[in-house]
Amino acid sequence: MHKRKLETCFSPALFEADAHKDSIVVILDILRASSAICTAFANGAASIIPVTGVKEAMDYKSRGYLVAAERDGFVLDFADFGNSPFNFTKEKVEGKTIVYSTTNGTGLINMASSAYKTVIGSFLNIKSLTQWLINQESDVLLLCAGWKNRFNIEDTVCAGAIAETLMKSDHFKTICDSTYAAIDLWSMARPDLPGYIEKAAQRTRLRDKKLDDCIGFCLTPDFTDKIPVIRDGILVDSLLEE
Amino acid sequence: MHKRKLETCFSPALFEADAHKDSIVVILDILRASSAICTAFANGAASIIPVTGVKEAMDYKSRGYLVAAERDGFVLDFADFGNSPFNFTKEKVEGKTIVYSTTNGTGLINMASSAYKTVIGSFLNIKSLTQWLINQESDVLLLCAGWKNRFNIEDTVCAGAIAETLMKSDHFKTICDSTYAAIDLWSMARPDLPGYIEKAAQRTRLRDKKLDDCIGFCLTPDFTDKIPVIRDGILVDSLLEE
Repeated sequence: MHKRKLETCFSPALFEADAHKDSIVVILDILRASSAICTAFANGAASIIPVTGVKEAMDYKSRGYLVAAERDGFVLDFADFGNSPFNFTKEKVEGKTIVYSTTNGTGLINMASSAYKTVIGSFLNIKSLTQWLINQESDVLLLCAGWKNRFNIEDTVCAGAIAETLMKSDHFKTICDSTYAAIDLWSMARPDLPGYIEKAAQRTRLRDKKLDDCIGFCLTPDFTDKIPVIRDGILVDSLLEE
Repeated sequence: MHKRKLETCFSPALFEADAHKDSIVVILDILRASSAICTAFANGAASIIPVTGVKEAMDYKSRGYLVAAERDGFVLDFADFGNSPFNFTKEKVEGKTIVYSTTNGTGLINMASSAYKTVIGSFLNIKSLTQWLINQESDVLLLCAGWKNRFNIEDTVCAGAIAETLMKSDHFKTICDSTYAAIDLWSMARPDLPGYIEKAAQRTRLRDKKLDDCIGFCLTPDFTDKIPVIRDGILVDSLLEE
Protein backbone atom coordinates (compact mmCIF):
# COMPACT_ATOMS: atom_id res chain seq x y z
CA MET A 1 0.00 0.00 0.00
CA HIS A 2 1.19 3.49 -0.80
CA LYS A 3 1.72 5.28 2.46
CA ARG A 4 1.23 9.00 2.75
CA LYS A 5 3.65 11.30 4.52
CA LEU A 6 2.83 12.62 7.97
CA GLU A 7 4.76 15.54 9.42
CA THR A 8 4.41 17.83 12.41
CA CYS A 9 5.57 21.41 12.74
CA PHE A 10 5.93 22.93 16.19
CA SER A 11 5.81 26.61 15.27
CA PRO A 12 4.57 28.86 12.47
CA ALA A 13 8.17 30.10 12.23
CA LEU A 14 9.20 26.60 11.15
CA PHE A 15 6.43 26.17 8.55
CA GLU A 16 7.81 25.51 5.08
CA ALA A 17 4.95 26.57 2.82
CA ASP A 18 6.59 25.35 -0.40
CA ALA A 19 7.05 21.85 0.98
CA HIS A 20 3.35 21.51 1.77
CA LYS A 21 1.57 22.89 -1.29
CA ASP A 22 0.12 19.44 -1.95
CA SER A 23 -0.56 18.55 1.69
CA ILE A 24 -3.51 18.89 3.98
CA VAL A 25 -2.45 21.25 6.75
CA VAL A 26 -4.18 20.80 10.10
CA ILE A 27 -3.98 23.92 12.25
CA LEU A 28 -3.90 23.28 15.99
CA ASP A 29 -4.36 26.21 18.37
CA ILE A 30 -5.98 24.38 21.24
CA LEU A 31 -6.05 27.27 23.74
CA ARG A 32 -8.16 28.68 22.29
CA ALA A 33 -8.63 29.63 18.62
CA SER A 34 -9.07 26.24 17.00
CA SER A 35 -11.32 25.06 19.84
CA ALA A 36 -13.44 28.20 19.42
CA ILE A 37 -13.72 27.70 15.66
CA CYS A 38 -14.78 24.07 16.05
CA THR A 39 -17.37 25.14 18.63
CA ALA A 40 -18.73 27.81 16.30
CA PHE A 41 -19.38 25.25 13.56
CA ALA A 42 -20.78 22.78 16.08
CA ASN A 43 -23.29 25.50 16.99
CA GLY A 44 -24.27 26.12 13.40
CA ALA A 45 -22.08 29.01 12.23
CA ALA A 46 -22.35 29.37 8.45
CA SER A 47 -18.79 30.54 7.91
CA ILE A 48 -15.88 32.32 9.56
CA ILE A 49 -13.75 34.95 7.89
CA PRO A 50 -10.28 34.93 9.45
CA VAL A 51 -8.62 38.34 9.43
CA THR A 52 -5.17 39.22 10.70
CA GLY A 53 -5.33 42.92 11.45
CA VAL A 54 -7.43 44.78 13.99
CA LYS A 55 -8.33 47.46 11.46
CA GLU A 56 -9.67 44.88 9.05
CA ALA A 57 -11.83 43.44 11.84
CA MET A 58 -13.15 46.95 12.63
CA ASP A 59 -14.02 47.52 8.99
CA TYR A 60 -16.09 44.35 8.94
CA LYS A 61 -17.80 45.40 12.18
CA SER A 62 -18.80 48.73 10.65
CA ARG A 63 -20.34 46.78 7.76
CA GLY A 64 -22.57 44.88 10.17
CA TYR A 65 -20.67 41.63 10.63
CA LEU A 66 -20.52 39.72 13.88
CA VAL A 67 -16.90 40.13 15.01
CA ALA A 68 -14.82 38.00 17.38
CA ALA A 69 -11.55 39.74 18.12
CA GLU A 70 -9.00 39.58 20.87
CA ARG A 71 -5.38 40.38 21.52
CA ASP A 72 -3.42 38.51 24.18
CA GLY A 73 -6.62 36.99 25.48
CA PHE A 74 -8.63 40.19 25.87
CA VAL A 75 -11.68 41.15 23.84
CA LEU A 76 -11.16 44.26 21.71
CA ASP A 77 -13.65 46.96 22.63
CA PHE A 78 -15.38 47.18 19.26
CA ALA A 79 -15.83 43.40 18.98
CA ASP A 80 -18.97 41.41 19.79
CA PHE A 81 -16.94 38.87 21.72
CA GLY A 82 -13.51 37.29 22.07
CA ASN A 83 -11.79 34.00 21.79
CA SER A 84 -13.44 31.77 24.37
CA PRO A 85 -15.32 28.84 22.83
CA PHE A 86 -18.09 29.66 25.33
CA ASN A 87 -18.80 32.86 23.38
CA PHE A 88 -19.71 30.98 20.22
CA THR A 89 -23.14 29.87 21.42
CA LYS A 90 -25.90 28.61 19.18
CA GLU A 91 -27.93 31.73 20.00
CA LYS A 92 -25.17 33.99 18.76
CA VAL A 93 -23.67 32.16 15.81
CA GLU A 94 -26.28 29.88 14.20
CA GLY A 95 -26.54 30.65 10.51
CA LYS A 96 -24.15 33.59 10.83
CA THR A 97 -20.89 34.59 9.20
CA ILE A 98 -18.36 35.56 11.85
CA VAL A 99 -15.28 37.69 11.33
CA TYR A 100 -12.51 36.37 13.56
CA SER A 101 -9.21 37.93 14.54
CA THR A 102 -6.96 36.52 17.27
CA THR A 103 -3.42 37.04 18.46
CA ASN A 104 -2.19 33.83 17.00
CA GLY A 105 -4.64 31.72 15.12
CA THR A 106 -5.90 33.78 12.24
CA GLY A 107 -2.50 34.89 10.95
CA LEU A 108 -1.60 31.24 10.84
CA ILE A 109 -4.75 30.29 8.97
CA ASN A 110 -3.95 32.83 6.29
CA MET A 111 -0.34 31.69 6.16
CA ALA A 112 -1.29 28.05 5.67
CA SER A 113 -3.80 28.82 2.93
CA SER A 114 -1.25 27.98 0.25
CA ALA A 115 -1.62 24.30 1.13
CA TYR A 116 -3.81 21.94 -0.87
CA LYS A 117 -6.32 22.03 1.96
CA THR A 118 -6.23 23.71 5.35
CA VAL A 119 -8.45 22.45 8.15
CA ILE A 120 -8.89 23.25 11.82
CA GLY A 121 -8.17 20.59 14.40
CA SER A 122 -8.72 20.37 18.14
CA PHE A 123 -9.58 17.78 20.73
CA LEU A 124 -13.21 18.79 20.16
CA ASN A 125 -13.31 17.28 16.66
CA ILE A 126 -10.40 14.85 16.92
CA LYS A 127 -12.18 11.62 16.04
CA SER A 128 -14.00 12.87 12.97
CA LEU A 129 -10.92 14.82 11.87
CA THR A 130 -8.59 11.82 12.04
CA GLN A 131 -11.08 9.63 10.19
CA TRP A 132 -11.49 12.35 7.54
CA LEU A 133 -7.70 12.62 7.17
CA ILE A 134 -7.44 8.86 6.71
CA ASN A 135 -10.13 9.00 4.02
CA GLN A 136 -8.32 11.68 1.99
CA GLU A 137 -5.46 10.95 -0.37
CA SER A 138 -2.94 13.62 0.60
CA ASP A 139 0.08 13.94 2.82
CA VAL A 140 -0.68 15.59 6.15
CA LEU A 141 1.09 18.30 8.09
CA LEU A 142 0.05 18.93 11.68
CA LEU A 143 0.83 22.61 12.25
CA CYS A 144 0.96 23.76 15.86
CA ALA A 145 0.15 27.42 16.36
CA GLY A 146 2.39 27.67 19.41
CA TRP A 147 2.57 31.00 21.19
CA LYS A 148 4.39 33.92 19.59
CA ASN A 149 6.22 31.39 17.46
CA ARG A 150 7.28 29.33 20.47
CA PHE A 151 6.67 25.63 20.95
CA ASN A 152 3.75 24.86 23.21
CA ILE A 153 2.63 21.73 25.00
CA GLU A 154 -1.12 21.78 24.39
CA ASP A 155 -0.93 21.95 20.59
CA THR A 156 1.84 19.35 20.59
CA VAL A 157 -0.05 16.74 22.59
CA CYS A 158 -3.09 17.20 20.35
CA ALA A 159 -0.82 16.72 17.32
CA GLY A 160 0.51 13.60 19.03
CA ALA A 161 -2.99 12.22 19.59
CA ILE A 162 -3.88 12.75 15.92
CA ALA A 163 -0.53 11.39 14.73
CA GLU A 164 -0.83 8.25 16.84
CA THR A 165 -4.18 7.39 15.26
CA LEU A 166 -2.99 8.16 11.74
CA MET A 167 0.11 6.00 12.18
CA LYS A 168 -1.95 3.14 13.56
CA SER A 169 -4.26 3.35 10.53
CA ASP A 170 -1.36 2.09 8.43
CA HIS A 171 -2.06 4.69 5.74
CA PHE A 172 0.78 6.95 6.85
CA LYS A 173 4.52 6.87 7.29
CA THR A 174 6.78 9.41 8.95
CA ILE A 175 10.46 10.19 9.27
CA CYS A 176 9.70 13.33 11.20
CA ASP A 177 11.25 13.71 14.65
CA SER A 178 8.55 16.20 15.67
CA THR A 179 5.87 13.61 14.96
CA TYR A 180 7.60 10.97 17.07
CA ALA A 181 8.13 13.44 19.90
CA ALA A 182 4.50 14.57 19.75
CA ILE A 183 3.29 10.97 19.94
CA ASP A 184 5.54 10.32 22.94
CA LEU A 185 4.39 13.46 24.74
CA TRP A 186 0.78 12.48 24.04
CA SER A 187 1.47 9.06 25.57
CA MET A 188 2.59 10.86 28.75
CA ALA A 189 -0.34 13.28 28.71
CA ARG A 190 -3.14 10.84 27.91
CA PRO A 191 -3.66 9.28 31.38
CA ASP A 192 -4.46 12.73 32.80
CA LEU A 193 -4.66 15.36 30.07
CA PRO A 194 -5.87 18.28 32.23
CA GLY A 195 -3.18 17.43 34.79
CA TYR A 196 -0.50 17.33 32.12
CA ILE A 197 -1.62 20.65 30.64
CA GLU A 198 -1.17 22.23 34.09
CA LYS A 199 2.48 22.83 33.23
CA ALA A 200 1.73 24.56 29.95
CA ALA A 201 2.68 28.24 29.99
CA GLN A 202 -0.60 29.14 28.26
CA ARG A 203 -2.48 27.39 31.08
CA THR A 204 -0.80 29.80 33.51
CA ARG A 205 -1.32 32.83 31.27
CA LEU A 206 -5.04 32.11 30.95
CA ARG A 207 -5.37 31.52 34.69
CA ASP A 208 -3.63 34.82 35.44
CA LYS A 209 -6.15 36.61 33.20
CA LYS A 210 -9.07 34.62 34.63
CA LEU A 211 -9.71 33.23 31.16
CA ASP A 212 -9.16 29.60 32.05
CA ASP A 213 -12.78 28.55 32.59
CA CYS A 214 -12.88 26.94 29.14
CA ILE A 215 -9.75 24.83 29.37
CA GLY A 216 -11.50 21.66 30.51
CA PHE A 217 -13.90 22.05 27.61
CA CYS A 218 -11.05 22.60 25.11
CA LEU A 219 -9.56 19.26 26.19
CA THR A 220 -12.82 17.35 25.68
CA PRO A 221 -12.63 14.84 22.87
CA ASP A 222 -15.35 14.52 20.24
CA PHE A 223 -17.68 17.34 21.17
CA THR A 224 -18.43 17.74 17.46
CA ASP A 225 -17.93 15.98 14.14
CA LYS A 226 -17.50 19.25 12.26
CA ILE A 227 -14.28 19.84 10.37
CA PRO A 228 -13.75 23.49 9.51
CA VAL A 229 -11.93 23.83 6.17
CA ILE A 230 -10.71 26.89 4.29
CA ARG A 231 -12.38 27.64 0.98
CA ASP A 232 -11.31 30.83 -0.82
CA GLY A 233 -9.90 32.24 2.39
CA ILE A 234 -13.05 31.56 4.40
CA LEU A 235 -13.66 28.79 6.91
CA VAL A 236 -16.63 26.60 6.11
CA ASP A 237 -17.92 23.20 7.17
CA SER A 238 -15.99 20.50 5.30
CA LEU A 239 -19.26 18.82 4.32
CA LEU A 240 -20.03 21.84 2.12
CA GLU A 241 -16.67 21.39 0.49
CA GLU A 242 -17.23 17.86 -0.78
CA MET B 1 16.89 32.08 46.91
CA HIS B 2 16.92 33.92 43.62
CA LYS B 3 16.22 31.40 40.90
CA ARG B 4 17.64 31.83 37.45
CA LYS B 5 15.64 31.36 34.28
CA LEU B 6 16.03 28.19 32.25
CA GLU B 7 14.73 28.02 28.69
CA THR B 8 15.04 25.63 25.78
CA CYS B 9 14.90 26.43 22.10
CA PHE B 10 14.24 23.63 19.61
CA SER B 11 15.57 25.28 16.46
CA PRO B 12 17.97 28.04 15.42
CA ALA B 13 14.99 29.54 13.56
CA LEU B 14 13.28 30.08 16.92
CA PHE B 15 16.31 31.63 18.65
CA GLU B 16 15.59 35.13 19.95
CA ALA B 17 19.06 36.67 20.21
CA ASP B 18 17.87 39.87 21.93
CA ALA B 19 16.16 37.93 24.70
CA HIS B 20 19.36 36.08 25.58
CA LYS B 21 22.07 38.74 25.55
CA ASP B 22 22.61 38.19 29.27
CA SER B 23 22.22 34.40 29.21
CA ILE B 24 24.58 31.51 28.87
CA VAL B 25 23.64 29.74 25.65
CA VAL B 26 24.42 26.02 25.48
CA ILE B 27 24.64 24.76 21.91
CA LEU B 28 23.60 21.15 21.43
CA ASP B 29 24.30 19.44 18.12
CA ILE B 30 24.70 15.90 19.35
CA LEU B 31 25.04 14.17 15.95
CA ARG B 32 27.73 15.27 15.50
CA ALA B 33 29.21 18.78 15.75
CA SER B 34 29.02 19.41 19.47
CA SER B 35 30.19 15.87 20.25
CA ALA B 36 33.13 16.35 17.89
CA ILE B 37 34.07 19.67 19.48
CA CYS B 38 33.98 18.21 22.99
CA THR B 39 36.14 15.31 21.80
CA ALA B 40 38.65 17.70 20.26
CA PHE B 41 39.13 19.49 23.57
CA ALA B 42 39.22 16.21 25.46
CA ASN B 43 42.11 15.26 23.19
CA GLY B 44 43.99 18.47 23.84
CA ALA B 45 43.00 20.83 21.01
CA ALA B 46 44.16 24.35 21.81
CA SER B 47 41.26 26.12 20.11
CA ILE B 48 38.68 25.79 17.36
CA ILE B 49 37.80 28.53 14.91
CA PRO B 50 34.20 28.05 13.75
CA VAL B 51 33.60 29.28 10.22
CA THR B 52 30.34 29.27 8.31
CA GLY B 53 31.36 29.36 4.67
CA VAL B 54 33.29 26.78 2.65
CA LYS B 55 35.44 29.49 1.06
CA GLU B 56 36.49 30.80 4.45
CA ALA B 57 37.52 27.27 5.45
CA MET B 58 39.55 26.93 2.22
CA ASP B 59 41.31 30.23 2.90
CA TYR B 60 42.37 28.99 6.32
CA LYS B 61 43.56 25.71 4.78
CA SER B 62 45.76 27.60 2.32
CA ARG B 63 47.29 29.44 5.28
CA GLY B 64 48.33 26.14 6.86
CA TYR B 65 45.53 25.51 9.35
CA LEU B 66 44.16 22.09 10.18
CA VAL B 67 40.65 22.15 8.71
CA ALA B 68 37.61 20.05 9.59
CA ALA B 69 34.85 20.67 7.07
CA GLU B 70 31.83 18.77 5.88
CA ARG B 71 28.52 19.35 4.18
CA ASP B 72 25.60 16.98 4.75
CA GLY B 73 27.91 14.53 6.47
CA PHE B 74 30.58 14.33 3.80
CA VAL B 75 34.14 15.58 4.13
CA LEU B 76 34.95 18.41 1.73
CA ASP B 77 37.85 17.46 -0.56
CA PHE B 78 40.26 20.16 0.59
CA ALA B 79 39.71 19.46 4.29
CA ASP B 80 41.91 17.40 6.58
CA PHE B 81 38.89 15.58 7.99
CA GLY B 82 35.17 15.86 8.63
CA ASN B 83 32.71 15.87 11.44
CA SER B 84 33.07 12.51 13.14
CA PRO B 85 34.35 12.77 16.71
CA PHE B 86 36.63 9.86 15.82
CA ASN B 87 38.60 12.19 13.53
CA PHE B 88 39.60 14.45 16.37
CA THR B 89 42.25 12.13 17.80
CA LYS B 90 44.96 13.17 20.20
CA GLU B 91 47.57 12.52 17.48
CA LYS B 92 45.86 14.96 15.13
CA VAL B 93 44.61 17.72 17.40
CA GLU B 94 46.74 17.99 20.52
CA GLY B 95 47.99 21.53 20.92
CA LYS B 96 46.50 22.55 17.57
CA THR B 97 44.08 25.22 16.42
CA ILE B 98 41.43 23.67 14.20
CA VAL B 99 39.24 25.49 11.70
CA TYR B 100 35.80 23.89 11.70
CA SER B 101 32.94 24.25 9.26
CA THR B 102 29.86 22.01 9.34
CA THR B 103 26.42 22.00 7.77
CA ASN B 104 24.72 23.01 10.92
CA GLY B 105 26.83 23.62 13.94
CA THR B 106 29.21 26.40 13.10
CA GLY B 107 26.62 28.81 11.72
CA LEU B 108 24.77 28.37 14.97
CA ILE B 109 27.87 29.02 17.07
CA ASN B 110 28.38 32.32 15.27
CA MET B 111 24.70 33.20 15.61
CA ALA B 112 24.70 32.58 19.35
CA SER B 113 27.85 34.61 19.95
CA SER B 114 25.80 37.64 20.95
CA ALA B 115 24.93 35.89 24.23
CA TYR B 116 26.75 36.64 27.47
CA LYS B 117 28.53 33.30 27.12
CA THR B 118 28.18 30.53 24.56
CA VAL B 119 29.30 27.01 25.41
CA ILE B 120 29.15 23.64 23.71
CA GLY B 121 27.19 20.84 25.30
CA SER B 122 26.84 17.14 24.57
CA PHE B 123 26.36 13.90 26.43
CA LEU B 124 30.15 13.65 26.40
CA ASN B 125 30.57 16.55 28.85
CA ILE B 126 27.12 16.60 30.43
CA LYS B 127 28.08 16.21 34.07
CA SER B 128 30.79 18.85 34.17
CA LEU B 129 28.69 21.16 32.00
CA THR B 130 25.62 21.01 34.26
CA GLN B 131 27.75 21.54 37.35
CA TRP B 132 29.45 24.50 35.66
CA LEU B 133 26.06 25.98 34.71
CA ILE B 134 24.88 25.65 38.30
CA ASN B 135 28.01 27.44 39.50
CA GLN B 136 27.50 30.43 37.19
CA GLU B 137 25.13 33.30 37.93
CA SER B 138 23.30 33.67 34.63
CA ASP B 139 20.09 32.53 33.05
CA VAL B 140 20.55 29.55 30.74
CA LEU B 141 19.21 28.83 27.26
CA LEU B 142 19.60 25.32 25.87
CA LEU B 143 19.76 25.81 22.11
CA CYS B 144 19.19 22.73 19.99
CA ALA B 145 20.86 22.85 16.59
CA GLY B 146 18.19 20.68 15.02
CA TRP B 147 18.55 19.80 11.36
CA LYS B 148 18.03 22.44 8.70
CA ASN B 149 16.06 24.39 11.28
CA ARG B 150 13.84 21.43 12.11
CA PHE B 151 13.28 20.00 15.58
CA ASN B 152 15.31 16.88 16.27
CA ILE B 153 15.10 14.22 18.91
CA GLU B 154 18.75 13.74 19.85
CA ASP B 155 19.43 17.38 20.73
CA THR B 156 16.12 17.59 22.56
CA VAL B 157 16.73 14.62 24.85
CA CYS B 158 20.19 15.97 25.70
CA ALA B 159 18.57 19.33 26.53
CA GLY B 160 16.10 17.41 28.68
CA ALA B 161 18.86 15.61 30.54
CA ILE B 162 20.63 18.90 31.29
CA ALA B 163 17.37 20.66 32.19
CA GLU B 164 16.34 17.91 34.58
CA THR B 165 19.57 18.25 36.55
CA LEU B 166 19.42 22.05 36.57
CA MET B 167 15.81 22.04 37.81
CA LYS B 168 16.67 19.52 40.53
CA SER B 169 19.54 21.76 41.68
CA ASP B 170 16.92 24.27 42.85
CA HIS B 171 18.89 27.15 41.32
CA PHE B 172 16.60 27.41 38.30
CA LYS B 173 12.98 28.03 37.44
CA THR B 174 11.22 27.68 34.11
CA ILE B 175 7.91 28.58 32.50
CA CYS B 176 9.09 27.24 29.18
CA ASP B 177 7.01 24.53 27.52
CA SER B 178 10.01 23.38 25.48
CA THR B 179 11.95 22.72 28.67
CA TYR B 180 9.13 20.65 30.17
CA ALA B 181 8.72 18.71 26.94
CA ALA B 182 12.47 18.07 26.70
CA ILE B 183 12.56 16.76 30.27
CA ASP B 184 9.63 14.43 29.55
CA LEU B 185 11.20 13.13 26.35
CA TRP B 186 14.44 12.56 28.23
CA SER B 187 12.53 10.56 30.85
CA MET B 188 11.30 8.31 28.04
CA ALA B 189 14.71 8.05 26.40
CA ARG B 190 16.82 7.48 29.50
CA PRO B 191 16.16 3.75 30.09
CA ASP B 192 17.55 2.95 26.63
CA LEU B 193 19.06 6.03 25.00
CA PRO B 194 20.55 4.31 21.91
CA GLY B 195 17.25 2.48 21.40
CA TYR B 196 15.28 5.72 21.69
CA ILE B 197 17.57 7.51 19.24
CA GLU B 198 16.86 4.76 16.69
CA LYS B 199 13.78 6.71 15.60
CA ALA B 200 15.68 9.96 15.07
CA ALA B 201 15.80 10.98 11.42
CA GLN B 202 19.48 11.88 11.76
CA ARG B 203 20.16 8.36 12.99
CA THR B 204 18.74 7.07 9.70
CA ARG B 205 20.55 9.69 7.61
CA LEU B 206 23.90 8.78 9.17
CA ARG B 207 23.24 5.07 8.73
CA ASP B 208 22.37 5.58 5.06
CA LYS B 209 25.69 7.38 4.56
CA LYS B 210 27.59 4.79 6.63
CA LEU B 211 28.53 7.54 9.06
CA ASP B 212 26.82 6.06 12.09
CA ASP B 213 29.80 4.31 13.66
CA CYS B 214 30.19 7.14 16.17
CA ILE B 215 26.60 7.33 17.43
CA GLY B 216 27.13 5.08 20.43
CA PHE B 217 30.12 7.21 21.39
CA CYS B 218 28.13 10.47 20.99
CA LEU B 219 25.59 9.14 23.49
CA THR B 220 28.21 8.28 26.10
CA PRO B 221 27.95 10.43 29.21
CA ASP B 222 30.95 12.05 30.83
CA PHE B 223 33.72 11.14 28.43
CA THR B 224 35.33 14.47 29.28
CA ASP B 225 35.09 17.32 31.75
CA LYS B 226 36.00 19.93 29.14
CA ILE B 227 33.55 22.74 28.45
CA PRO B 228 34.25 24.50 25.17
CA VAL B 229 33.37 28.20 25.42
CA ILE B 230 33.48 30.96 22.84
CA ARG B 231 35.97 33.76 23.44
CA ASP B 232 36.23 36.44 20.75
CA GLY B 233 34.62 34.16 18.22
CA ILE B 234 36.96 31.24 18.95
CA LEU B 235 36.21 28.12 20.94
CA VAL B 236 38.55 27.55 23.86
CA ASP B 237 38.59 25.43 27.00
CA SER B 238 36.42 27.13 29.65
CA LEU B 239 39.23 26.76 32.18
CA LEU B 240 41.29 29.26 30.17
CA GLU B 241 38.37 31.64 30.35
CA GLU B 242 38.19 31.86 34.11
